[in-house]
Amino acid sequence: MSSYSAQQSSISENNRSRILQYLYHNGISSRAQIAKAIELTPAAITKITAKLLFRDVIEETGDMEGDKNRRSIGLNLNCAKYHVVGVKFARSLVQIAVFDLKCNRISLTDLPTVDEEHIPETVEQIRATVRQLIADDSSIVAVGMAVPGPYLVEEGRTALVSSMQGWRQVNFIKEFSEAFNVPVFVEQDARAGALAQFLFNPELSEGSLAYYLLGEGIGLGIIDNGSIYYGAHGTATEIGHISVDVNGKPCDCGNIGCLERYCSANAIHERLNEQPSIVPGCEAMTHAQACTALFAKAAAGDKAAMDLTSEVARYIGYGAVNIINAFNPTHIVLGDIISQAGQPLLDEVKKVVRERTIPEVGHDTKITLSNLPTDATVSGAAAVAITNFLEHPSMFFDVA
Amino acid sequence: MSSYSAQQSSISENNRSRILQYLYHNGISSRAQIAKAIELTPAAITKITAKLLFRDVIEETGDMEGDKNRRSIGLNLNCAKYHVVGVKFARSLVQIAVFDLKCNRISLTDLPTVDEEHIPETVEQIRATVRQLIADDSSIVAVGMAVPGPYLVEEGRTALVSSMQGWRQVNFIKEFSEAFNVPVFVEQDARAGALAQFLFNPELSEGSLAYYLLGEGIGLGIIDNGSIYYGAHGTATEIGHISVDVNGKPCDCGNIGCLERYCSANAIHERLNEQPSIVPGCEAMTHAQACTALFAKAAAGDKAAMDLTSEVARYIGYGAVNIINAFNPTHIVLGDIISQAGQPLLDEVKKVVRERTIPEVGHDTKITLSNLPTDATVSGAAAVAITNFLEHPSMFFDVA
Repeated sequence: MSSYSAQQSSISENNRSRILQYLYHNGISSRAQIAKAIELTPAAITKITAKLLFRDVIEETGDMEGDKNRRSIGLNLNCAKYHVVGVKFARSLVQIAVFDLKCNRISLTDLPTVDEEHIPETVEQIRATVRQLIADDSSIVAVGMAVPGPYLVEEGRTALVSSMQGWRQVNFIKEFSEAFNVPVFVEQDARAGALAQFLFNPELSEGSLAYYLLGEGIGLGIIDNGSIYYGAHGTATEIGHISVDVNGKPCDCGNIGCLERYCSANAIHERLNEQPSIVPGCEAMTHAQACTALFAKAAAGDKAAMDLTSEVARYIGYGAVNIINAFNPTHIVLGDIISQAGQPLLDEVKKVVRERTIPEVGHDTKITLSNLPTDATVSGAAAVAITNFLEHPSMFFDVA
Repeated sequence: MSSYSAQQSSISENNRSRILQYLYHNGISSRAQIAKAIELTPAAITKITAKLLFRDVIEETGDMEGDKNRRSIGLNLNCAKYHVVGVKFARSLVQIAVFDLKCNRISLTDLPTVDEEHIPETVEQIRATVRQLIADDSSIVAVGMAVPGPYLVEEGRTALVSSMQGWRQVNFIKEFSEAFNVPVFVEQDARAGALAQFLFNPELSEGSLAYYLLGEGIGLGIIDNGSIYYGAHGTATEIGHISVDVNGKPCDCGNIGCLERYCSANAIHERLNEQPSIVPGCEAMTHAQACTALFAKAAAGDKAAMDLTSEVARYIGYGAVNIINAFNPTHIVLGDIISQAGQPLLDEVKKVVRERTIPEVGHDTKITLSNLPTDATVSGAAAVAITNFLEHPSMFFDVA
């Protein structure tokens, strides 16, 4: 293909994608509204939408009120027609869910807690589960995967999974890219969470969005004016490995005083095991269960549980201050396991930010708890697939 | 203007800019080479270059060897024809220099050391000096200014100038935007330094570039795949205010343990004043002079001077580790006052990075000392003006 026709094809694909994205975010719209919003001629819109209608990707919804009171026909993206699979890899936790394009969850499977010794068997189990889902549901068009960072984009491998190094051996591209008869997309977990917030929460799509993943690891995904921030090889925004105390606790990554050594679910569980009176029986729990039990005791007014929660929240606040000074986001969304600590967590994080940032810089940043209905990372895995569907339509249906 | 013609005009401006940028970076080129490189039709190139030739922005250089041994005429950007003024605002230091488009320095003026009480007089003196330079040299087409961060882009004001708060009162846009008969562009100092590296050092223009400004403040400018990283209001990449010890030294910004409290020229000067035996007489020196004297003694083998330099270098290394985990750059360039410590500084920074980053993440990042002939920030101020000249040509000459 000459470079001229490659360029033409990418312009058509880009215009097609912009129409789908407009319909996705704005719902039923007339051709005239789309033409005006994305600055294409009405003729171009008519041509592209004719093909999308022919393939049933969009549908006509009947008359709607147009500009200047002219009647015009509404177009709608067929969001219920396409399903995607989202796979969330945490450290010990794998969740697989099916969603429609609007992130309505159709099914959810929790795999048994992953044991470091049996990661290859877990990989095989994921493949079998996803294959069965695709066999049972012909509307599934893509699989999205959310994996712990730092994720090396070109290699397809996570460079380090603190406290569960076995996952480092897994090459996600090699293990999964050819495993199914639909395309597979892999993204670092916090970026996947950011994509979910961006797609499903319209008020977060303006400016610069930070999704602050507070789970078994501490992660960050930044979408700055519509673009994910990756850096050179995809290992940027690793807030969990930014040191908050260069003379502090050592981390598996080689650094000293990494944020996640103080406030990840694993770090909290470690602290609980040292003081087992706070959550009796915590040794036998998963990290997530131990945190949930801690937050329940704190909510019930237990002094030791409240103190530990508040100390953890202060470290999450220190991380938020570093996020603000590094990335100057419009909005920081707190999500995953530890965000379940709720309002007291949010209040403490905001307090630390007020104390420790320059007013003109920090006080404009909105900080909220994730309000996604289901776990943000498994929704995030789905969001990775949906984003690719909207951005690269020719991968999913015949556009000729 | 209708939105359609606005779009057309921005496409023409964009094509014009791409031709100028291609000639800027590649030197003498034929129309065919430009057409191929920037994927425009030969007819479009001929049309746009005709106008640029008519305005003397570019010139024909005579026959050159073309593709397939056909002779063709070379085009060249008239880099010597246009001059720009660069103004560097450090805390106590203001430098004003004239450069051509290739950053050859034509003149340099150092203003007297700035006294916090007399900032309005300094502002007036800058205006007078720049006006005189423009009056004396009709080839000056723009003024670029590099100011300390965090710089609030929309407001035109620096939110905090640690250890010299008087500069906070200065609104750079208000004070300077209408002061001259040529356009003025203001940029945060480390971003200006990054632009200088990007423009004048071809091997740094690929991937993701971090310019790590080690001066009276500690700053960072990131150019990721050709785009400066700003965040929501321009206060991103403030590495100097990212804490390396949340229980450490308090900073003017409200945060605790900010990197610049440990390794800025001011912090080094403070340490020297506490141990005046290292650099006798340091109390009477400027921060820059005190640092230069320290590095000279260290280079001469003085044990106490070497120890302090090495301790400072370790903190600069901790900052580099945080830069790698936050931004995953291809290249980190160390510049400004403290980079004069040279090879021992570079060695220690690289050692800390080897110790404290995941090999797959950190060891690919190249770390070098700035090799710009003149101080990178005043070149950076010029680079801000030159970048705008190349990106927005219609602001500088009649394109019709």
